[in-house]
Amino acid sequence: MAQQLIDRRDIDFVLWEQFDYEKLLKKDAFKEFNKKTCDMIINEARALAIKELLPTMAEGDKEGVKYENGKVTVPECFKRPHELLLEGEWGCLGVPEEMGGQGAPSFIASIASEHFMAASWACNSYASMGNGTAAMIQLYGTEKQKKKYVNRLVSGEWGGTMLLTEASAGSDVGALETTAKKNPDGTYTLSGNKIFITNGDHNLCKNIIHPVLARIEGAPQGIKGVSIFLVPNYFVNDNGALGERNDIICTGVEHKHGIKASATCTMALGSKGKCIGELLGEENKGMRVMFTMVNGARMHTGLQALAYASASYMLAVNYARERIQFRELGQPNEAPPVAIINHPDVRRNLLWMKSYVDGMHSFFQYAEKCQEMAHLADSDEDKELYSGQFELLTPIIKSFLADRGYEVCVQGIQVFGGAGYTQDYLVEQYARDCKIASIYEGTSGIQAMDLLGRKLGMKEGKVFTTFLSEIGKTVEQAKKVKGLEEMASAVEKLANRLGEISMKMGSNAMSPNTFKAAFSHSLPFLNVMGDMIIAWMLLWRAAVAAPKLGSSASKKDQSFYEGQVKTAQFYIETVVPTIFGRMDSIEKCSSAAIDISEDAFGGL
Amino acid sequence: MAQQLIDRRDIDFVLWEQFDYEKLLKKDAFKEFNKKTCDMIINEARALAIKELLPTMAEGDKEGVKYENGKVTVPECFKRPHELLLEGEWGCLGVPEEMGGQGAPSFIASIASEHFMAASWACNSYASMGNGTAAMIQLYGTEKQKKKYVNRLVSGEWGGTMLLTEASAGSDVGALETTAKKNPDGTYTLSGNKIFITNGDHNLCKNIIHPVLARIEGAPQGIKGVSIFLVPNYFVNDNGALGERNDIICTGVEHKHGIKASATCTMALGSKGKCIGELLGEENKGMRVMFTMVNGARMHTGLQALAYASASYMLAVNYARERIQFRELGQPNEAPPVAIINHPDVRRNLLWMKSYVDGMHSFFQYAEKCQEMAHLADSDEDKELYSGQFELLTPIIKSFLADRGYEVCVQGIQVFGGAGYTQDYLVEQYARDCKIASIYEGTSGIQAMDLLGRKLGMKEGKVFTTFLSEIGKTVEQAKKVKGLEEMASAVEKLANRLGEISMKMGSNAMSPNTFKAAFSHSLPFLNVMGDMIIAWMLLWRAAVAAPKLGSSASKKDQSFYEGQVKTAQFYIETVVPTIFGRMDSIEKCSSAAIDISEDAFGGL
Repeated sequence: MAQQLIDRRDIDFVLWEQFDYEKLLKKDAFKEFNKKTCDMIINEARALAIKELLPTMAEGDKEGVKYENGKVTVPECFKRPHELLLEGEWGCLGVPEEMGGQGAPSFIASIASEHFMAASWACNSYASMGNGTAAMIQLYGTEKQKKKYVNRLVSGEWGGTMLLTEASAGSDVGALETTAKKNPDGTYTLSGNKIFITNGDHNLCKNIIHPVLARIEGAPQGIKGVSIFLVPNYFVNDNGALGERNDIICTGVEHKHGIKASATCTMALGSKGKCIGELLGEENKGMRVMFTMVNGARMHTGLQALAYASASYMLAVNYARERIQFRELGQPNEAPPVAIINHPDVRRNLLWMKSYVDGMHSFFQYAEKCQEMAHLADSDEDKELYSGQFELLTPIIKSFLADRGYEVCVQGIQVFGGAGYTQDYLVEQYARDCKIASIYEGTSGIQAMDLLGRKLGMKEGKVFTTFLSEIGKTVEQAKKVKGLEEMASAVEKLANRLGEISMKMGSNAMSPNTFKAAFSHSLPFLNVMGDMIIAWMLLWRAAVAAPKLGSSASKKDQSFYEGQVKTAQFYIETVVPTIFGRMDSIEKCSSAAIDISEDAFGGL
Repeated sequence: MAQQLIDRRDIDFVLWEQFDYEKLLKKDAFKEFNKKTCDMIINEARALAIKELLPTMAEGDKEGVKYENGKVTVPECFKRPHELLLEGEWGCLGVPEEMGGQGAPSFIASIASEHFMAASWACNSYASMGNGTAAMIQLYGTEKQKKKYVNRLVSGEWGGTMLLTEASAGSDVGALETTAKKNPDGTYTLSGNKIFITNGDHNLCKNIIHPVLARIEGAPQGIKGVSIFLVPNYFVNDNGALGERNDIICTGVEHKHGIKASATCTMALGSKGKCIGELLGEENKGMRVMFTMVNGARMHTGLQALAYASASYMLAVNYARERIQFRELGQPNEAPPVAIINHPDVRRNLLWMKSYVDGMHSFFQYAEKCQEMAHLADSDEDKELYSGQFELLTPIIKSFLADRGYEVCVQGIQVFGGAGYTQDYLVEQYARDCKIASIYEGTSGIQAMDLLGRKLGMKEGKVFTTFLSEIGKTVEQAKKVKGLEEMASAVEKLANRLGEISMKMGSNAMSPNTFKAAFSHSLPFLNVMGDMIIAWMLLWRAAVAAPKLGSSASKKDQSFYEGQVKTAQFYIETVVPTIFGRMDSIEKCSSAAIDISEDAFGGL
């Protein structure tokens, strides 16, 4: 039967065959979880996503959020799945037990989330956004703050946000103008306006706790003078009961290209002069607090794009199996029409989509594993290794999954043809919704600067060389598998070439004559690294699958393993040669985009 | 001042400096047009587009079309610009005088159209779609039919459509099921249902004339049994007055990703058994009639995508000049923030957009010139040459401009960042509207099959080798221009390589063992050909501009010419190396997408 959202067999393959997560489950931290409980959790999340959330996706888009008199109303159909998400404690599946969460391994939590995101991202976000706020409070809050907020944010009873962006301070956080003035009682009075606040107001929670970036009067300019404050919609009394309404209101919502059911709010703090916040952490050290959320937000955004791409591929491949149109290529005129999955151009398109969906699933789980092992590895050396890899990979997870995920969604429309352009199918909405992923939580350009400017040179480049040697391990393994020798060599050559151009990029980025040109190629560089990782992951998959072909596996498994090998072959034969070309381009490091005068861009 | 829609200086450059259209204007056919009148026409079209059409674009999208009881109502704001388009006879600017048009050279008509399309494509389409219907009648109709329909279609008083697609006959026209039965009076009674009919019904015209593809009872199967009929909404009496209503109605409109103000209709013919049509041309020869529209429709669709891309670039480059955010890269923390056009990643993005917008403008006009010269060249040999080039280029114009135009629009969103994702700016709408171009009038996949299966081998490949030698002429010219030698060599190498892989593709496409694999790479092949053409066009532009640098040209012109050289340099240094990689991929002709079994695509 046609599957929805994510290929269920593929999840098992990644978790239990490619990454051998059963080993991870032997760690003390996960003693309450084994393969069986994990499978059960995945199946339950999947059922909830398909049965309860997915039906709200198109309706949520059509209805959007409504704004009236400072209040935002979400689509009515979100209420039931929202309650079910809270009842099942799905929002806090991966949150540590000491914070009131379920303490599941993050790979399981992310697979559950991916289902909910693919089924109705906006609906899910209302139930899970408190976690980020709670995590900041858990790390930097006082005992009183933790007690007051953490559990109720984690449970989803209260919502959380992040009030960062202002009209003149988007990517440039240090330019923000919201002010805070200390009161005699130790609280602060805030004043300012924020924009693009996801879920800044809505009618699904009784209270919303806003972490707000602001500048205390007299603080240094730029990011060094930024503090972070907790500003609840309703004050919370010592007994936990809700008190008076705080002076923070939503003044409007954006009308957007996609994620229309998610409230993107403009917020006014202190329009009556009475917006009161509590300092979180220390004065002028707000950026550090905020940065604890950055990696989580990047992973989350990458996963969001991947979820859309995966769901779009499931729709496309199954539509292509059903839609009858045209005779088979090379057959005589009177031959009967066939399903479009038989047409060469459609097959290429589908296999291209599958390459990226499979590769990105593995890439995401690999990054997830690095994150987990950074805490759980046995030796400090391994912890450092995994921590470094995770830091290196997060900007790529964020930007590459966003951009390639979007392209997959666009190709999903193309497979459907005219039908895909209508709103009778979800593929067009997946594309619209997915576009946000390359923009928020730091645009792709910002991620690329982070990769080239900070991550590539971490520990004198040692983190990056470790990354290359991790690829080398898979190559060595694949070389020993019959039939994969040539593919393994191709990936090896690609990794070597990546090493070469990375050296060059790194040195160009540090030279006064070439650093601007280098940074103009930083996003293409991030993307070749991403595409390299897909080659690595697909080779890895093939190396696991190929030995099982012709074994005693079921017919269904045989098809699955065949798919792994053919997908790797397709990608390595058709996409990898194009990556070499892009590497040549990056190595050239053209300065044309830097040298051209502003007027010469035209349009004046 | 910031320009909108299309760079005005660039239009002059393409028409008068790159292609030397003044020579073309010396032809007898254009004796009423000279450079001055052409410039005046462009300026008037531009003013009308910016002042009257552009304000309706977002409103049209928001309001969409309304369907009630078989009637479609367009956005109210379309009425005034529609009347102005008709009054100014803008819809028939390029239509021959003998059909009641203005007989302007097609390059001028297309530039006017491009402005209207960029400003409000949907609004413009209601005023101009009668031309295609009129052209078919002019070629294949009886004298009576011509007299009855042509003038009033050309003037825009009546609308025209094309009733081709059915639920089970999209790309596969031969599968259509609409029937026609001959009546004793020579008319035909039609019965069937059509979908995806652009402007199938609307309230801007008094009558709509529908060319309908249908199968006469007993006709052969497939495309050999397809006839074409004229089915007016209202019958037309011999004195030209409108008579009774015909039995053809709109039964609904699609809700779409974009072009929401264009009515995409489902049409029922003969639901009361009384749909009467007149045969156009001969029985069972409908495909031939329809094909007279194909090249025009392809050019139109390419132009539509180009128009959106051009408008999106104008918005993006001027937003980037105004939006202040972040200090300059490499400056100390306390440096003031600058306009984002100063940031390397934004510059690369903008110059990439500009490369394609400039290159596609030239490419379109080159194809336009080939089309014009196929009729107007002095010798039969030249007519044949230009006709061949036009045939070769049309599938590329359609598919490549659609796909790259879309990518430009998507990058337009990215330059705007969060603002671009809102509906406060037009960039997100341009992207949504543009997506249709890769789907209708034959998907990109269909165009790629046409290129590989029919066009590449025309006249034993002579048309293609002529194409390569035309590139060679530009290369030779550029080699003589100081500073362009290296660029010219790079383009020469690329053209040689294209020649190599085309030979290979051509032979693979004809071999029984490899033809399916070859066709699975047909769209990537079309796209490298398109990118090759962009390299050619940008080199050509640079070769015209470079000698004028440092001359007595105005400061503004100097900037413009600098832009031409730098854009070519950027494209040749950064994009051309990636094309070589993609050519390697195509040459490999991987059969993985063909060999993989259907089940192995997963999702079952």
